[in-house]
Amino acid sequence: MARLYAALVHYPVLNRRGEIIASAITNLDLHDLARAGRTYDVRACYVVTPLRDQQALSERLLKHWNEGIARELLPERVEALRRIKVVEDIRAAADDIASVHGLRPGIWATTAGKGERRLTHREARRLLVEDAKPYLLLFGTGWGLAPAVFDQVDAVLEPIAGMNGYNHLSVRCAAAILFDRLLRADQSI
Amino acid sequence: MARLYAALVHYPVLNRRGEIIASAITNLDLHDLARAGRTYDVRACYVVTPLRDQQALSERLLKHWNEGIARELLPERVEALRRIKVVEDIRAAADDIASVHGLRPGIWATTAGKGERRLTHREARRLLVEDAKPYLLLFGTGWGLAPAVFDQVDAVLEPIAGMNGYNHLSVRCAAAILFDRLLRADQSI
Repeated sequence: MARLYAALVHYPVLNRRGEIIASAITNLDLHDLARAGRTYDVRACYVVTPLRDQQALSERLLKHWNEGIARELLPERVEALRRIKVVEDIRAAADDIASVHGLRPGIWATTAGKGERRLTHREARRLLVEDAKPYLLLFGTGWGLAPAVFDQVDAVLEPIAGMNGYNHLSVRCAAAILFDRLLRADQSI
Repeated sequence: MARLYAALVHYPVLNRRGEIIASAITNLDLHDLARAGRTYDVRACYVVTPLRDQQALSERLLKHWNEGIARELLPERVEALRRIKVVEDIRAAADDIASVHGLRPGIWATTAGKGERRLTHREARRLLVEDAKPYLLLFGTGWGLAPAVFDQVDAVLEPIAGMNGYNHLSVRCAAAILFDRLLRADQSI
């Protein structure tokens, strides 16, 4: 059984000009990631930000959905959002996973860019099925993960290839497509 | 070459209580659908709403991104949003497609619900490759397409099956996953 975790990284990521920034939390990102994660049984979705006010905002958003009227009207949303955990950095996410499994996770970065020595989705899928160890899949917000992140991961996944060289999916859609490619039960489609 | 079109339907759709409503346009839905559509070469993405103020809002959002600073800073976003067309109802979308191809499109509905006689993704993929005629894929906002829509379509696609019976993907993520399943070039993953 796949032991896949996901992290939505808000720092360090790039902005449009290629500068390293901490991006802002987006309520909808959290919901979409949680719902897709729950659908594909991604074990937990980490929201990575070192900014205290952004951590507090995330916690407030999650608390809102876990209480009162929202809980009553949208129980399936509550169930999804329970998988979201707010952490300070990527290491904290890896530590949390290690504390559950007693094994450090393999860490995979994602990117829309081309490059060499990329882990294919097929190979990643095989590792998830065959490996006992957990894996953590990193998604960059803004204009993608900062270069330093790529030096610290075990592999970089091949980008999702479109039909005509265009690749500007939202992080929400990219995560959903990757979950489907790596985790869906029916491999025939 | 696949001739797939998509429509994001805001009427007639259901609300949480199963009532038929016209849902509100969401800026992010338009962007995500346009970006995923552009990535997979979906020919056009229709925004379906009979409400005049919502049509005007959509046009204003699209105009904003097609002009001035946005156009300069995010040319790839402009390119994606060019595929969005605002129409009054599903028939208007079908008419528009027919005017391009000289053939009425086959119309497929999507749903998160189980049911009989569903078109599998594999079969839909085959039809897209082999058929000369265009197809229009309908996505319901809110709590999904109203029952009357299902009576008027040529087929209903099987739902995206998750890992554990949970299926509450956002319409953004569901559309991205379906585009990937039906249109991606590499069928080996």
